Amino acid sequence: MTSPELFDAVDVIMTKRDGRTLDSAQIAWVIDAYTHGAVAEEQMSALAMAVFLQGLDREELNAWTAAMINSGERLCFTDLDRPTSDKHSTGGVGDKITLPLTPLVASFGVGVPQLSGRGLGHTGGTLDKLESIPGWRAALSTDEMRAQLSSVGAVICQAGAGLAPADRKLYSLRDVTGTVASIPLIASSIMSKKIAEGTSSLVLDVKCGSGAFMTDLESARDLARTMVDIGEDHGVHTKALITDMSAPLGCSVGNALEVREAVEVLAGGGSSDVVELTIALAREMLDAAAQVVTSFGVRGAGIAAGSFQAEQLADTLLQADPSQALRSGQAMDTWREMIRAQGGDPDADLVWAHHSEDVVSTRDGYLTSLDALKVGMAAWRLGAGRARKEDPVQAGAGVVLFAKPGDRIKVGQKLMTVHTDTPGHIARALQALEGAWVIETEPKKETSLVLERIAAE
Amino acid sequence: MTSPELFDAVDVIMTKRDGRTLDSAQIAWVIDAYTHGAVAEEQMSALAMAVFLQGLDREELNAWTAAMINSGERLCFTDLDRPTSDKHSTGGVGDKITLPLTPLVASFGVGVPQLSGRGLGHTGGTLDKLESIPGWRAALSTDEMRAQLSSVGAVICQAGAGLAPADRKLYSLRDVTGTVASIPLIASSIMSKKIAEGTSSLVLDVKCGSGAFMTDLESARDLARTMVDIGEDHGVHTKALITDMSAPLGCSVGNALEVREAVEVLAGGGSSDVVELTIALAREMLDAAAQVVTSFGVRGAGIAAGSFQAEQLADTLLQADPSQALRSGQAMDTWREMIRAQGGDPDADLVWAHHSEDVVSTRDGYLTSLDALKVGMAAWRLGAGRARKEDPVQAGAGVVLFAKPGDRIKVGQKLMTVHTDTPGHIARALQALEGAWVIETEPKKETSLVLERIAAE
Repeated sequence: MTSPELFDAVDVIMTKRDGRTLDSAQIAWVIDAYTHGAVAEEQMSALAMAVFLQGLDREELNAWTAAMINSGERLCFTDLDRPTSDKHSTGGVGDKITLPLTPLVASFGVGVPQLSGRGLGHTGGTLDKLESIPGWRAALSTDEMRAQLSSVGAVICQAGAGLAPADRKLYSLRDVTGTVASIPLIASSIMSKKIAEGTSSLVLDVKCGSGAFMTDLESARDLARTMVDIGEDHGVHTKALITDMSAPLGCSVGNALEVREAVEVLAGGGSSDVVELTIALAREMLDAAAQVVTSFGVRGAGIAAGSFQAEQLADTLLQADPSQALRSGQAMDTWREMIRAQGGDPDADLVWAHHSEDVVSTRDGYLTSLDALKVGMAAWRLGAGRARKEDPVQAGAGVVLFAKPGDRIKVGQKLMTVHTDTPGHIARALQALEGAWVIETEPKKETSLVLERIAAE
Repeated sequence: MTSPELFDAVDVIMTKRDGRTLDSAQIAWVIDAYTHGAVAEEQMSALAMAVFLQGLDREELNAWTAAMINSGERLCFTDLDRPTSDKHSTGGVGDKITLPLTPLVASFGVGVPQLSGRGLGHTGGTLDKLESIPGWRAALSTDEMRAQLSSVGAVICQAGAGLAPADRKLYSLRDVTGTVASIPLIASSIMSKKIAEGTSSLVLDVKCGSGAFMTDLESARDLARTMVDIGEDHGVHTKALITDMSAPLGCSVGNALEVREAVEVLAGGGSSDVVELTIALAREMLDAAAQVVTSFGVRGAGIAAGSFQAEQLADTLLQADPSQALRSGQAMDTWREMIRAQGGDPDADLVWAHHSEDVVSTRDGYLTSLDALKVGMAAWRLGAGRARKEDPVQAGAGVVLFAKPGDRIKVGQKLMTVHTDTPGHIARALQALEGAWVIETEPKKETSLVLERIAAE
C-alpha cells in the first residue's frame, strides 16, 4: 500500500482545482485515505467539486475507478461453468426491464449476477419491486449467490456492503454537496460497483429524456462512452444502448404493479416497448457473452479459448432467439426458479393498494407525449418510492397507464389509475401529474426507443 | 432572520457551481446556517471550491461579507472623542510596521483600534511580537479597549471570538480544503473582521512579492481593489497601498528582534524601508481620519460635520508630520503609554535567544536580492513562528540581517545572524536560506517600496 505520508490532501485538491492532472498514485492514495477517514469529508467534498468543474481525463478516471474498486472486495466468476453478463440501467420511470431480462438471458446458459439497489427519489429500485413477492429475500451471501449462478444462472440480489465502500461513502457525500451530476463521478461510481461485482461482460442501458438523469442525448452519449471506456480499460467487455426515457416504460410504475407487468412479458405478452427493450438488451448480453467465450473460453466448464467447444457455445449464444424464449415459456421457467431460489413464491398473489382513483381525458385527439418525470413523481408521492434511505415503500402504490404516446384518445376515456394505501396523498400525486400528458389533434411521428448503440472504438 | 426552510444548501452550491449568481438572501442564509451548524462543513467546503473556481461578483461579495459581519458582534466607535483609523497588512516577512505605526498615528489624536492575530507559517503575528515584552497582555475586553482608545488612543490587542465567527470557522475549513488562495474569499475574510472591528477608516497594506500571499502585482492589485470596494460599500473609508515584499522589511525577522527594531524607529532611527513605509501608511491613515472628520464630524467630541471645528481638526490631521513625530519622541511617548496600559514594561530588557550563528559572504559584489520567503521560512524553523495554532513561539528566535539589497558586500562580511533556543534547528534554517541571496558584480536599479496606491474609483 501507498504510505499516507507520501501525499497531502490539500496538494491533491489544489492540483485538481488548478486544472492539472493527478497521477495514479495520488488518486489511489486519496481514495484509500478517504475510505479510512484520513482524508476528511470536507476535503473530499472540495475535491469532488474540483473534479466536477475541472474534469478527469481517461487515465485519471481509470485510476479513480480502480481505487474505488480496490477499496473493497472484488468478486470473480471466471471459474463458473458458464460465461457471465450483467446489465446496468442508469434508472428510469417504469424501468422493470431487469426483471424479465435476467431470467431471459440466464435461460440460454449465461450467468447473470445482477446486484441491485433500492430506489431513491422518483426512480424505483429493483429490490423494492421484487420484495412485493411474498417470501422473496434480497440479501444473499457471496456463496449463496455463486451457488445460485451455477444452478439457476440468474440472481438478482442486494449488493453487499463490501463492494466499493469508497463509492458508497463518496455517493452520500456527493448527494449533499451538489456534486452528483458529474459525468466522471457518475461513470466511476457505476463502473466501480459493476466491475467489483465480477461480471465478464456488461451492457449499459443509458436512459435519456425527462425521466432520466441525462435529459439530453449529448450528455447521455458522453456518459455512455465514458463508462464503455472504463469497462474496456478494466477488462470487462462493455457496450451501451442509449434509450429514450421521455415517457415511462410500459404500462405500470410502482413495485407490485411492475412485477405483474414483468410476468406478463415473461408469459409472452406485455407492452411492446418493454418487450422491445428486453429483447434488445438480451441480444447485446448474449452477443457479449459469446465474445467473452471466444476470447477467454469458460474455465469452470473446461472450455478453452479457441477450442471447437468455445466456438460452438459462442455460436449458440449468437443464434439464441430471446423473442422465442419469451413466447415459449423458457424465460418464465428460469424466472420461477430464480424467485423460488430466493425464498419467493412465484405463484403468490401480489398485493393491490387499498385506494385508487382514475384519471380521464377531457378531450379527443392523440396522446402525443406523457412526461416520465411527472409520472415518476406521482408514483413516488403515492408511496412507491422513498425520500430518505430509511423510508419504507408501499408494495401496491403506483400508477397504471391505459394510454401510451401515439394512442387515439376520446373524451371521458381512462388515461391512468393511481393506486395508494394512503389516500391523503392522492391530491399531491394528481398535482404532480398536472401537464403530464399532451393530447393533440394529429399524432406525432413515432420515435424509436433505442436511440444509439455505443461500443469500444 | 431568514427562515432556514426557505433555502436548500445543495441548491445554493449548485447555483454557484454552475456559474450563476447567488442572491443576497441565499448568501445571508447559507453563512448564517453554516455558522450555526445547519449547513455542514462538507457543504460549505463544496461551496468554497465553487466560489474559488466561479468567483463572486461585487454584489455577491458584499452580501457574503455582510453575512460574515452579521454572524457576530460589531463594535462601534463613532461615539468616541476622536476619529478612528485602522491598518491591515496582508502579511509579510519582517513586517513590524503595526508596532511603530499605531502609536505614531494615535499621537496625533486619532483612535487606532488595532485588533491583531497570531502568526501561522512563515509570517509573524503582531501579538506574538508584543508578547516578548514582559507583562504585556493581548486579551482586552471591549470595555478595556474602548477605555484605552479614549485615554491613549492606541490599542493593539487580540480580536475577540465574538467578531465574525463565521470567518473563523470558514477560514479553518479553507485551510484544509485548498480554498485559501481565492481573492473574493480572502477579501471578505479580511474585510469582515476589519468592518466588524468598528473603525471609520481603513488603510490596507497589500504585500506583493516572494514573501507575500500575492506574488504578482496583478493579483495584489485585484485583491486591493476588491477590498477597497467592500470597505467603501460598507461605509468604511478605505484605501490600499501595494507594497513590495520581495525582500524582508527592515533588519530583523522574529518576535523580540522586531520589537527592538520598532523601538529604534520610534526613537527616530531604524531601517530606511521600515521608516518609509511607517510614514507612508501614517500619512494615509491621517488623511483618511481627516476625511472621516469632514464627512461625519466627531460625535463624542461634539464636533458636527461641516462645522468650523471639524474643518480645523481635519486640517490639523492633514498637516500632521509623522516624520517629525518619530524624531521628536511624540510617537515614542504614546508607545510607552500603550504598552503600559496593557500591563507591559516599556523599559524591560527583551530576551535574546541562547544560540546564534553568523552567515558570511563567500564573494565580493553587490547584494541584488534577498528572498523574503526564504528568510521567513528560516525564522519560522528557528522557532519564531508556529506550524499549528497550538504551538508556542520562541520570543528570541529569528534572523538579524546585516545587509540589504543594494549594499556593497565583501568576502567574509557577515550577511546575517540566525538566533534560536533550539540549536538543533539551525541546520534546517540554514538549509531554508540556501539561495536566499544573490551577490552580483553590478548593483541593481533600486525599486520603490510603495508600488501602487488604490483608492475608491
